[in-house]
Amino acid sequence: KEKFAVKSADGNWEWGIGGRIMADYAIYDNDTDSSGMEVPGLSDGHELRRARLNMSGKFYDVWGMKLQVDFAGGAEIKDAYIDYSGFENFKVKVGNFKEPFSLEELTSSKYITFMQRSTPVNAFAPSRNLGIAGYTSFADQVTLSGGVFGDGIESGSGDDGTSYGVTGRVTFSPIHEAGRVVHLGAAVSQRNTNSNNTVRFRDRFETHVSGTRLVDTADLTNTDDVTRYGLEAAGVWDRLSLQGEYIMADVNRDNGFEDADFDGFYLTGSFFLTDDHRPYDFGPGDFDKVSPSTTVGKGGIGAWEVAARYSSLDLNDGALNGGKQDLLTVGLNWYATKNIRFMANYNQVLDLKGGAFDGAEPAAFQARAQVFW
Amino acid sequence: KEKFAVKSADGNWEWGIGGRIMADYAIYDNDTDSSGMEVPGLSDGHELRRARLNMSGKFYDVWGMKLQVDFAGGAEIKDAYIDYSGFENFKVKVGNFKEPFSLEELTSSKYITFMQRSTPVNAFAPSRNLGIAGYTSFADQVTLSGGVFGDGIESGSGDDGTSYGVTGRVTFSPIHEAGRVVHLGAAVSQRNTNSNNTVRFRDRFETHVSGTRLVDTADLTNTDDVTRYGLEAAGVWDRLSLQGEYIMADVNRDNGFEDADFDGFYLTGSFFLTDDHRPYDFGPGDFDKVSPSTTVGKGGIGAWEVAARYSSLDLNDGALNGGKQDLLTVGLNWYATKNIRFMANYNQVLDLKGGAFDGAEPAAFQARAQVFW
Amino acid sequence: KEKFAVKSADGNWEWGIGGRIMADYAIYDNDTDSSGMEVPGLSDGHELRRARLNMSGKFYDVWGMKLQVDFAGGAEIKDAYIDYSGFENFKVKVGNFKEPFSLEELTSSKYITFMQRSTPVNAFAPSRNLGIAGYTSFADQVTLSGGVFGDGIESGSGDDGTSYGVTGRVTFSPIHEAGRVVHLGAAVSQRNTNSNNTVRFRDRFETHVSGTRLVDTADLTNTDDVTRYGLEAAGVWDRLSLQGEYIMADVNRDNGFEDADFDGFYLTGSFFLTDDHRPYDFGPGDFDKVSPSTTVGKGGIGAWEVAARYSSLDLNDGALNGGKQDLLTVGLNWYATKNIRFMANYNQVLDLKGGAFDGAEPAAFQARAQVFW
Repeated sequence: KEKFAVKSADGNWEWGIGGRIMADYAIYDNDTDSSGMEVPGLSDGHELRRARLNMSGKFYDVWGMKLQVDFAGGAEIKDAYIDYSGFENFKVKVGNFKEPFSLEELTSSKYITFMQRSTPVNAFAPSRNLGIAGYTSFADQVTLSGGVFGDGIESGSGDDGTSYGVTGRVTFSPIHEAGRVVHLGAAVSQRNTNSNNTVRFRDRFETHVSGTRLVDTADLTNTDDVTRYGLEAAGVWDRLSLQGEYIMADVNRDNGFEDADFDGFYLTGSFFLTDDHRPYDFGPGDFDKVSPSTTVGKGGIGAWEVAARYSSLDLNDGALNGGKQDLLTVGLNWYATKNIRFMANYNQVLDLKGGAFDGAEPAAFQARAQVFW
Repeated sequence: KEKFAVKSADGNWEWGIGGRIMADYAIYDNDTDSSGMEVPGLSDGHELRRARLNMSGKFYDVWGMKLQVDFAGGAEIKDAYIDYSGFENFKVKVGNFKEPFSLEELTSSKYITFMQRSTPVNAFAPSRNLGIAGYTSFADQVTLSGGVFGDGIESGSGDDGTSYGVTGRVTFSPIHEAGRVVHLGAAVSQRNTNSNNTVRFRDRFETHVSGTRLVDTADLTNTDDVTRYGLEAAGVWDRLSLQGEYIMADVNRDNGFEDADFDGFYLTGSFFLTDDHRPYDFGPGDFDKVSPSTTVGKGGIGAWEVAARYSSLDLNDGALNGGKQDLLTVGLNWYATKNIRFMANYNQVLDLKGGAFDGAEPAAFQARAQVFW
Repeated sequence: KEKFAVKSADGNWEWGIGGRIMADYAIYDNDTDSSGMEVPGLSDGHELRRARLNMSGKFYDVWGMKLQVDFAGGAEIKDAYIDYSGFENFKVKVGNFKEPFSLEELTSSKYITFMQRSTPVNAFAPSRNLGIAGYTSFADQVTLSGGVFGDGIESGSGDDGTSYGVTGRVTFSPIHEAGRVVHLGAAVSQRNTNSNNTVRFRDRFETHVSGTRLVDTADLTNTDDVTRYGLEAAGVWDRLSLQGEYIMADVNRDNGFEDADFDGFYLTGSFFLTDDHRPYDFGPGDFDKVSPSTTVGKGGIGAWEVAARYSSLDLNDGALNGGKQDLLTVGLNWYATKNIRFMANYNQVLDLKGGAFDGAEPAAFQARAQVFW
């Protein structure tokens, strides 16, 4: 198969090793904000965006585990969990993994349509934390998942307290076959704050080489808890795919500070120029690997895809002036093989209201070489 | 088999990849010390205790190597060595590995009975250092090991000097079959200090989520060398296992500072509720992997074990007031499969005399999910 | 074979895992400089010099990738690239890898003759950077390679600008069979500086345990660009091998600062006491793995090699006083198996003119245990 994997003779033990490399290059077209200043930190450059290795196992059909480390910028643990699926139609997972929130967040970075996830997803989705979660599904149409999570991985959170969150997600997919997908989803996540009582939302403008963030709430002090709500919809019709999400974050503050509401959404459309389509994975309720109908190196040209995304993130609320950003990204993806993809993205900030760089509308052209295994 | 391993067709080359994940959660019951202050840093929390990958090899039957890295909290090299066993009944090892000192220290963290090793072992045992060691055995009853070791792994110890230690261990095991083990051992380790001439002994109270240490000598300056002495005894009778150690550290100081003696011991008893037993490995003289007689996922319930440990660590000596701590831990272990274990520990400080938190007797309840491969 | 590798049944997917461990020990014989001061930082010590894991893949015969991480001192990515060789006699590579400059630099640290590469190579060769390069060859005699490279791997070089370099290399090898090699090479590399406009050349005296550098230009400010020129020659005649390089760095400065020229060379001779020889790899134009004719563990004594190297690095130019160092290294290598080597080096600084330690002539004795797989 396409994996570095081995299985014991008795079938009780399966092992696999995988990984991914993503190398990025970005050129920036800077712009002046309403005070006439250029945005700082937008120099052309490159980075190794992700360089990961993982090891996974399956034991006695019902036990599983995964350990994944990212070496781009030190060594950071991503997934580290054990799961058990020996119950009837129910899986439980313990360790460090993604909270069940947001279709785009749950879709692997190997399979997302653009080089970066959209700003509202990056700003709001909880991503990976240490916790325990359960997963079930009904009638091959509905999935339910939910769990309790602490903070991310730290060495000894008992030194200064940890925060806790409860997250649940439901998806409904009446159709999910090759080239025909309908997906609807909703999720909610409530999280208290740890001992420093702060929370912060921010994101880059869908480019990672530069660390500049145009929208940023800064630390919101005296925060009691945050509730996130997410709505998802996606569809695939042959070569065409549409996907959108709306996410809201409701910040509950005390000591006389006013509560705050932030939100954002994105809408993505993509179309394959070749005879290919985006595959959907019903169980986790996310998108999966594109397997091009022809392969470069076997006489084919791979799969070619064009895509556009409009995203909006509003971090302004009353006196809080984190900025509201509207952004358009267009992209071209070339899936040379099942595991090699080259990407080009052009990002244009359409409008920036408020925040530290009010009125600036920079743009980025960026490209990626990606392999996974 | 149960390992991700391959062997070349000619049998000259064998390769294996392994790893372990341990995810911990801890709740603390704080206490006031004799001055009425609560112990700081005892917040409930979680951590990824260990997340390791290793690769090992065997070449031409006589050469071996191992490289092991822990990713919990960055990337830290554990084992990194080459060994040669082509001599008659003699093995030599060079690189970074555990000095031959303490039964509990030498037993892998995958197989220890409680979530943490006992305080005297953590405070005194030298653990891994860069060095060279030899191993032999006699009459299937006696093992001898000894080596010379520098410091741990550093990049360029030549910049500020290194310390050196000599360590030797002898074990005597007249009986070591399934369900019947007698083990006696003794070890001694002498180590000079590096250019800063300090040594420090301390430990957490057998819980790691909180970094708080109730006993701590702080840096002992003007130290010339330290000699550690260890005595070990262990026995297995079917489901029952007993194990204990006594360790003393003799600190030799100069420039008019008085020498210091510290010591500690622990005693562990464990009992399987199921038809299982603790296996012993004669060669290295330590305990090995429990293979439950039935497996969860193959119709069984795994192995269930209850255990209790009493440990005492005395870091008071004359004017040196590091504290003396007596601690009781009770535990429940569930070995779901050969490689998956869930653990629950309750630790109660019975008595704390001296040190920074004199009189405080906090407790911890902690649980672990563990997988290795 | 000698690799941990697997291949899919259809032959489209090949995977391999490798690594290396090098553990060093060094003793220093210090010396006083012309002012009567001893060189600081030359304490005896040890270090884990390299501890690497890598994973490589080959897909559909034409695609390849490699990811290599060094864990000695944290986690640092070395190679991380994708390559494509589906063109006629042409390979293109994108990601992080070595720029094509210097025979000794391009030869793997697993196969170099001494524990450290020579000072001129360490001081001047660009080594690994993120970029794109192409490789071709003619008539089994000439290779051409060249590429465009940014900086090394950083997380978001767009924050403060990156520098760019263009590097090309040509090699000519009319003879390259077992025990008969002639190699000639030339390379040039031009690189501008990033936003801080500085460049620095320096190196240890071919020992790494101590970080002390006797020659060092310090940061040269107001630098516009640097052009490096390299010449290579090597030959193998049965057990005998000769190898030498000359490298010059031409620093172009502005704002009234004078340009600077630095250079250096080395000459290595090595001779096998056993019936062995150094193998050459025509494609990349570098030296390859010694496969001893007899193996320790299979009744043999391995391969034994003696070697000597004279190196000179001149970092003085006009008012710039980085120091000029002449160094002699003699070495003994024992290749116990194809993948295990023990090394001993004695380094003597013959002459040190200028720099911070003018007149100091320290020496080092150092040994290494090395395994790779």
